[in-house]
Amino acid sequence: MQKKFTLAETDIPEQWYNIVADMPNKPLPPLHPGTHQPIGPEMLMPLFPMELIKQEVTTDRWVGIPEEVREIYKVWRPTPLFRATGLEKALDTPAKIYYKYEGVSPAGSHKPNTAVPQAFYNKQEGVKRITTETGAGQWGSALSFACSLFGMECDVYMVRASYDGKPYRKMMMHTWGANVYPSPSDRTNAGKQILAQDPHSPGSLGIAISEAVEMAVQDEHTKYALGSVLNHVLMHQTVIGLEAIKQLEQAGDFPDIVVAPFGGGSNFAGISFPFLRYNLAEGKQIRCIAAEPASCPKLTRGVFRYDLGDTIGMTPLIPMYTLGHNFIPAPIHAGGLRYHGAGAIVSQLLHDGLIEAQSHNQLSCFEAGILFAKTEGIIPAPEANHAIATVIREAQQAKEEGVPKTILFNLCGHGHFDMAAYEQYLSGKLVDHEVTQEEIMASLAELDTPLINV
Amino acid sequence: MQKKFTLAETDIPEQWYNIVADMPNKPLPPLHPGTHQPIGPEMLMPLFPMELIKQEVTTDRWVGIPEEVREIYKVWRPTPLFRATGLEKALDTPAKIYYKYEGVSPAGSHKPNTAVPQAFYNKQEGVKRITTETGAGQWGSALSFACSLFGMECDVYMVRASYDGKPYRKMMMHTWGANVYPSPSDRTNAGKQILAQDPHSPGSLGIAISEAVEMAVQDEHTKYALGSVLNHVLMHQTVIGLEAIKQLEQAGDFPDIVVAPFGGGSNFAGISFPFLRYNLAEGKQIRCIAAEPASCPKLTRGVFRYDLGDTIGMTPLIPMYTLGHNFIPAPIHAGGLRYHGAGAIVSQLLHDGLIEAQSHNQLSCFEAGILFAKTEGIIPAPEANHAIATVIREAQQAKEEGVPKTILFNLCGHGHFDMAAYEQYLSGKLVDHEVTQEEIMASLAELDTPLINV
Repeated sequence: MQKKFTLAETDIPEQWYNIVADMPNKPLPPLHPGTHQPIGPEMLMPLFPMELIKQEVTTDRWVGIPEEVREIYKVWRPTPLFRATGLEKALDTPAKIYYKYEGVSPAGSHKPNTAVPQAFYNKQEGVKRITTETGAGQWGSALSFACSLFGMECDVYMVRASYDGKPYRKMMMHTWGANVYPSPSDRTNAGKQILAQDPHSPGSLGIAISEAVEMAVQDEHTKYALGSVLNHVLMHQTVIGLEAIKQLEQAGDFPDIVVAPFGGGSNFAGISFPFLRYNLAEGKQIRCIAAEPASCPKLTRGVFRYDLGDTIGMTPLIPMYTLGHNFIPAPIHAGGLRYHGAGAIVSQLLHDGLIEAQSHNQLSCFEAGILFAKTEGIIPAPEANHAIATVIREAQQAKEEGVPKTILFNLCGHGHFDMAAYEQYLSGKLVDHEVTQEEIMASLAELDTPLINV
Repeated sequence: MQKKFTLAETDIPEQWYNIVADMPNKPLPPLHPGTHQPIGPEMLMPLFPMELIKQEVTTDRWVGIPEEVREIYKVWRPTPLFRATGLEKALDTPAKIYYKYEGVSPAGSHKPNTAVPQAFYNKQEGVKRITTETGAGQWGSALSFACSLFGMECDVYMVRASYDGKPYRKMMMHTWGANVYPSPSDRTNAGKQILAQDPHSPGSLGIAISEAVEMAVQDEHTKYALGSVLNHVLMHQTVIGLEAIKQLEQAGDFPDIVVAPFGGGSNFAGISFPFLRYNLAEGKQIRCIAAEPASCPKLTRGVFRYDLGDTIGMTPLIPMYTLGHNFIPAPIHAGGLRYHGAGAIVSQLLHDGLIEAQSHNQLSCFEAGILFAKTEGIIPAPEANHAIATVIREAQQAKEEGVPKTILFNLCGHGHFDMAAYEQYLSGKLVDHEVTQEEIMASLAELDTPLINV
């Protein structure tokens, strides 16, 4: 039985797919946090190069991928598509399971798919330095890699707790030549303000965003980059699904279900949007399922309203499924999924019933990941384990129903930098983090951001 | 310009190449450490399954790869061949540089190429458990991965200093279900003997081999596996070079120089033997260069004589280039290259002038690795950096001579578990380890093993 479906580098997509063109209800506009009025592209100019701002607002169905970007994509793209023969056998399921493996990129996840074009457009418009924030380091390392290839400086504000406790991705960023600062730092007013209140602050993603944005706006040669949530970031990731379509054609197959982990939405968008197009344009009924942590359940238990992208109000208001921008997710190991909100496009799709969401607790995700490692060989990132947990649930359902469904999921990265989390799980030291309805209600009650009338 | 040359899974070789068939002088036989008489295959039966013993002594040119092994190879094979366009540009060299990337395997190196068939043949002959030793953990994790797929137990004796100081590969082995014991342990007589002398012994590869071998010989359902040096191990790795030949055909190219890091020989054999065949059988003159650490220079400064494979005499005597089995290499980060001797086949080839060797000190290897990471994106394992250092040297030579040479090397693994070493280098904390001629002479003077009359 064929296990691996590969493509030639000439099969790397020449265009990204922009789902906005096919959405029955377009995403609502971002609003100014002060005036609550829709913001124009010009407000984003201090932060992003013009080409990315254009991509953020375009309604074109297809956006060309620059040849220079495709040239770098060749280092890891096309990524392989695998039939999960070992997992299928272990589950004794009639379901056919396929996975797209994005862990073959130099940074080890899908994040370089957008880091490289973001660095490219910045370089093209004369930017010398890009700032960004990172939690555990997946996004920061992807952007460091991309900046290294274009000869640009990269300043990464890394949440202090991760900077101290998870040093290996910091070292990876150093190897690619990036500057990594623990956040809060004394390099910014935002950081100084926090440190004045608490000299031992462990930091947060919200603080790190503030620092990175502050450094970008005060220097004309410096801009800022974000690794998920925004429309153009989601669009860049669609190379994943576009390749998967060709590979499943090779396999003579087509999915009934498409699954991906969900943090801000780019992972999920990357694999599912090209398949959702078959639903939106051709009336197919592929189920696209976002898998989120039970400890950060914005899609399954949050509300759809305007909210801030960061915790202290430096970003526009985005129409999102949110738990409230003050919600602090429990310290699960899937750091990439610890975000209070979802991007505008994905939120609109969920609201319109065009996609589904499931949540999983931490222990069942590691159990799923270890079964995967033992049957397929690859040790997944903790984020990817959420997708695997959903896949197992659906494959067991298919067995109960006796239906040979075809399931595709995004194995978005490897777990090489997460071995301590696996060890904790195996030694019984990991716990689940329950979120009470009271906690969610309390976080949402603090919001004074505009409601969405729907 | 084409960057990546991929093959379909149907291109995975159907046979391993056994260079013994084409060697003008066959490798000398292993000797019994007590009698100094050639040992027969039956002496290896407590340690290895019969099929591997047959492979160890066969002179057949081609040995079939079992379909079950090819099925698992599909998880990462064929591995990609890349044109190092970024590195070429940085070096401003007329040389064309290609690399075969073995880091895409689940364990992150070329080691699973032999771990999987070794586990397979053991499983086929009813073995329940495989024991092995590991230093930093590359080989132990590869065997853990392979045993996991075949549902076999795997007991890894890991050098205590690495067990304590480099825990991440240990955790990886745990994730695949292996038992990992710090060596010396109190599970074996060998271990107890060492611990009685020194309860805080940091261990060594030699002690760990003794423990793994002792556990294998005393239980009929348990056997032992080695990750390099032996003939069958080298042969299993030839899938690397056999694939590279097809990929360079795609590129319309053929190498003038083939380079690989050198520890026990399997890495080097894997990529170079299928090309050496063109020299041996067709009179071509491809230069095959083994790159070893200056701190463990067995090929460039050792002697060709019989020596033990381990430090305390439980293995047969092997005809090898050696620094003496009591030679303790300095604690460089390229743990996979810290071995006192070279396998019999590679030693004979070097003695006969059919291959070359170069050595590099640690700092220049990390410098080469960082240039590679910044220009090609992939962060190499410290072992692989030795090959890159040789490639850079040869590419600069080509530039001086104005000759457009074609260079191929084996990028045998990624450096995800070696980030602390990169960080040490970048912060100026790494040093070179000089080996004096006196140290080498002193180590060799201790040998009472048979000389080779040549």
